[in-house]
Amino acid sequence: MTALSSAAPVAVDAPQVLDRCRALVRPALAQAVERLHPWVGEMAGYALGWCEVGGAPAAAPGGKGVRQALAVLGAEAAGAPGRAGVAAAVAVELVHTFSLLHDDIMDGDGTRRRRPTVWKAYGTGPAVLAGDALFALAVETLAAVPGGSGGLRLLSVALADLVRGQADDLLFAARPWTGPERVRPEAYRAMAEHKTGALLGCAAALGAVLGGASPATADALDRAGRHLGIAFQVVDDVLGLWGDPAVTGKPVHADLRERKKTFPVLAALNSPGADARRLAALLESDGNPAEAVALIEAAGGRTAALAEARRHVAAAETALAGAPLEATAAAQLRSLPAFLVGRDL
Amino acid sequence: MTALSSAAPVAVDAPQVLDRCRALVRPALAQAVERLHPWVGEMAGYALGWCEVGGAPAAAPGGKGVRQALAVLGAEAAGAPGRAGVAAAVAVELVHTFSLLHDDIMDGDGTRRRRPTVWKAYGTGPAVLAGDALFALAVETLAAVPGGSGGLRLLSVALADLVRGQADDLLFAARPWTGPERVRPEAYRAMAEHKTGALLGCAAALGAVLGGASPATADALDRAGRHLGIAFQVVDDVLGLWGDPAVTGKPVHADLRERKKTFPVLAALNSPGADARRLAALLESDGNPAEAVALIEAAGGRTAALAEARRHVAAAETALAGAPLEATAAAQLRSLPAFLVGRDL
Repeated sequence: MTALSSAAPVAVDAPQVLDRCRALVRPALAQAVERLHPWVGEMAGYALGWCEVGGAPAAAPGGKGVRQALAVLGAEAAGAPGRAGVAAAVAVELVHTFSLLHDDIMDGDGTRRRRPTVWKAYGTGPAVLAGDALFALAVETLAAVPGGSGGLRLLSVALADLVRGQADDLLFAARPWTGPERVRPEAYRAMAEHKTGALLGCAAALGAVLGGASPATADALDRAGRHLGIAFQVVDDVLGLWGDPAVTGKPVHADLRERKKTFPVLAALNSPGADARRLAALLESDGNPAEAVALIEAAGGRTAALAEARRHVAAAETALAGAPLEATAAAQLRSLPAFLVGRDL
Repeated sequence: MTALSSAAPVAVDAPQVLDRCRALVRPALAQAVERLHPWVGEMAGYALGWCEVGGAPAAAPGGKGVRQALAVLGAEAAGAPGRAGVAAAVAVELVHTFSLLHDDIMDGDGTRRRRPTVWKAYGTGPAVLAGDALFALAVETLAAVPGGSGGLRLLSVALADLVRGQADDLLFAARPWTGPERVRPEAYRAMAEHKTGALLGCAAALGAVLGGASPATADALDRAGRHLGIAFQVVDDVLGLWGDPAVTGKPVHADLRERKKTFPVLAALNSPGADARRLAALLESDGNPAEAVALIEAAGGRTAALAEARRHVAAAETALAGAPLEATAAAQLRSLPAFLVGRDL
């Protein structure tokens, strides 16, 4: 079973892998976006970093294209050419863009990738509409693939998980830091798996299914993506507390001010000892955020979060190792977690 | 071909048909909504008229359930039992509810069916999320049906049309009343077909496909639904200008104030004569709405709109008459247009 994936490790350059997949997917993604209503298409192009407000071409930083890469690599891992995964890549990239547009509205975030968010630039109503259009286009893209019905089942599960995770994330912010109503780490894991992991897992599994993989292989890729999503979310939490705002693009202490139930805080509150109790009292009284960050670290929240991320990266690797994957694609897949969640875990 | 549908006319009570279909679909619709995140499920239940804010049961007026009825009747028209169309009925009803939730945000409408809209009652972000969840649930419902991939193709086309129609409707409000940039009646028809007709057509076609209909029969039902949608939209425009606000639930002259490009106004502006010119001048200067309504009528806008609606009802009937439909279901299908767009056309 693991013969192919236990081939000798190859030095793989993750950014190069992402570049290659983006280049392979870009024409089909552009073609899909061109099918949209022109006004909606402009908003989609803006969100993807392809144009400015008004439609003038731009080369603003888009995303890294992790999801589209997972779809292409999923197809290749199943032994098919990468182009077999392109429809899956387009669909998941459209879903991802849709979810960013709508999440920015829900979270009231005005900036993304150093530009105004779509709702800030075009208005809330138009941004809702553009998200809906991207969602519909994703379904249309996959529905047009011969034999795409298994793929649509996978995508629909990921979509439902995505919305469920976003609902929990929003509701967690209103929950208390302590007491019986507090958010436990297990609830956080489920939220992060749904909100971030489901679409990553779906991307790889969808590509694999379109590449002819068995259900068991698709399932292994799905599990790997879900673990990667949790790791990614936890590391994002760590960067939100201890990262350089100039690098993360997030205002300092934004997560704490919004009472986001991030993993380092939950882990710190869950630890025994005086620091955890002091942290609880400080958070309940909306005290000084810098002091809270110091207490989170003292109570072991940062260490616990990094260990948690490492555990999920390892679980993703185990899932990959257990599936019969084509060796080159498998090596490229394995290069992504370390690159995405930080080499210094 | 038309032997079945040219059976002797049967007296059919349209409200009874709608009641029967709603009763058949309700358990499956409730079961689908129960699969949602509880918070999102409450918003969905509120939108459907099943509960109050907070979750207490209610029997608020939901919609008439036209789309679910079309799906059930589509299956029956294909010779299958109505239950064969229930998954289609659930999917289109979820899509319809999603589109109402998001349209109310885009249009800034605070009231629907005499209750606060979801975004007014729960906030904009949660309403965006609830719409997304309903959309995802619709796809999931149809993806779970064996052989549902043809159905998903139909649904994805309707979804794309729906968003396109909503985009045009929003953009039309910003267009001038006169001059080369004005909205022509043909553009209105395309907008209304997309915004209202596509999902009605999809409902009937989807039910028929799940009931085993041929592509030609599904296509005829789709065309009938699209014509019905245009007729429905035009009559809605007429009611917006001349209907009783106590019955329509719409504030008087709201469409004119929002510069909505409704069919009676476009037809009036397109007519020759002094009334059309006076109307154009009045609208361009945002003059007295009551005076505008009188001029729209004098310039023949109301008469033209009712004739337009009649034409589309007739076209829907022609589409139905040309398809080999089971007689009882066909008679019930034929009872709906007159009931929905008014018996006095």
